[in-house]
Amino acid sequence: MGGEHRSEAFRTKNPDATVPLLELDDGTCIAQCNAITEYIDGVFEGPSLMGTTPKERARISMMNLRAENGLMNAVGAYFHHATPGLGPVLETWQCPEWGNKQKEVACATMAYLDRVLADNEFIAGDSFSIADITAFAGLGFAEFAKIEIPESLNNLQAWRAKIAARPSIAG
Amino acid sequence: MGGEHRSEAFRTKNPDATVPLLELDDGTCIAQCNAITEYIDGVFEGPSLMGTTPKERARISMMNLRAENGLMNAVGAYFHHATPGLGPVLETWQCPEWGNKQKEVACATMAYLDRVLADNEFIAGDSFSIADITAFAGLGFAEFAKIEIPESLNNLQAWRAKIAARPSIAG
Repeated sequence: MGGEHRSEAFRTKNPDATVPLLELDDGTCIAQCNAITEYIDGVFEGPSLMGTTPKERARISMMNLRAENGLMNAVGAYFHHATPGLGPVLETWQCPEWGNKQKEVACATMAYLDRVLADNEFIAGDSFSIADITAFAGLGFAEFAKIEIPESLNNLQAWRAKIAARPSIAG
Repeated sequence: MGGEHRSEAFRTKNPDATVPLLELDDGTCIAQCNAITEYIDGVFEGPSLMGTTPKERARISMMNLRAENGLMNAVGAYFHHATPGLGPVLETWQCPEWGNKQKEVACATMAYLDRVLADNEFIAGDSFSIADITAFAGLGFAEFAKIEIPESLNNLQAWRAKIAARPSIAG
């Protein structure tokens, strides 16, 4: 909120000037959420959040991108462009028309995910994956940005309650 | 160009209503470029375009996303929003202000990639990867959309000529 991610010192580590950024012990800097997840998923033991077979990995990647582009990024565009966002110092360029259109995209994505969850226990099929994390975080961001999550989307609401009860979140 | 990707029949296979779409023999439909690449890279023999170690995979993913968001998608936004794009039938909503800003993003990304290529043989380091393909295609799209690729970006121009001479492209 203080704009540290826009400083020269930070930009040498991440020219995107965004968070999160993962800095490894050897100085390697990894930006972009998907790249960070790729690293963490590959280097630590335990169940994969990104799938093991090529088909699983492809499905999870596809659904994660739909949740990311259609929900997380769309809510972000609405927040940064069609609301005061982070305030006049950090929001140096706003395009309200674009932001409001992206709110429509976010709402359409909620309805889409509700249809997906009619036939699937999780966003990308039978297993919890990074796509669930992205979609769950996207709904949280939507709530923060005051985009209503329709009560009528029963599957989405039930899935959200189920994810919220997982130890990694509820604990 | 005839709008087939907006038809109901196509949308049942890909609700994003976008191409490319990969349909497998078992009926599985994979949309989103990264997901399709994930599948192809995992299922066929030969050198990986997405890396093998977690650190390699993370770096390639990061650089591919920078090329995709900063160049390919930015050029796409310019083309679809700030030019006639695919014409009035397919361009149902345009936001020229957004499109023109994304042209600036595309140009900044070209300059960024030029700096990366001062120290690296390829976009994501020492090896040819999916990030090179995305960036190369992004420059081709930029040319198509009449966004000039500055001659002064020597590293980018030299890399582009080198990629263009690869058998998979020149052949």
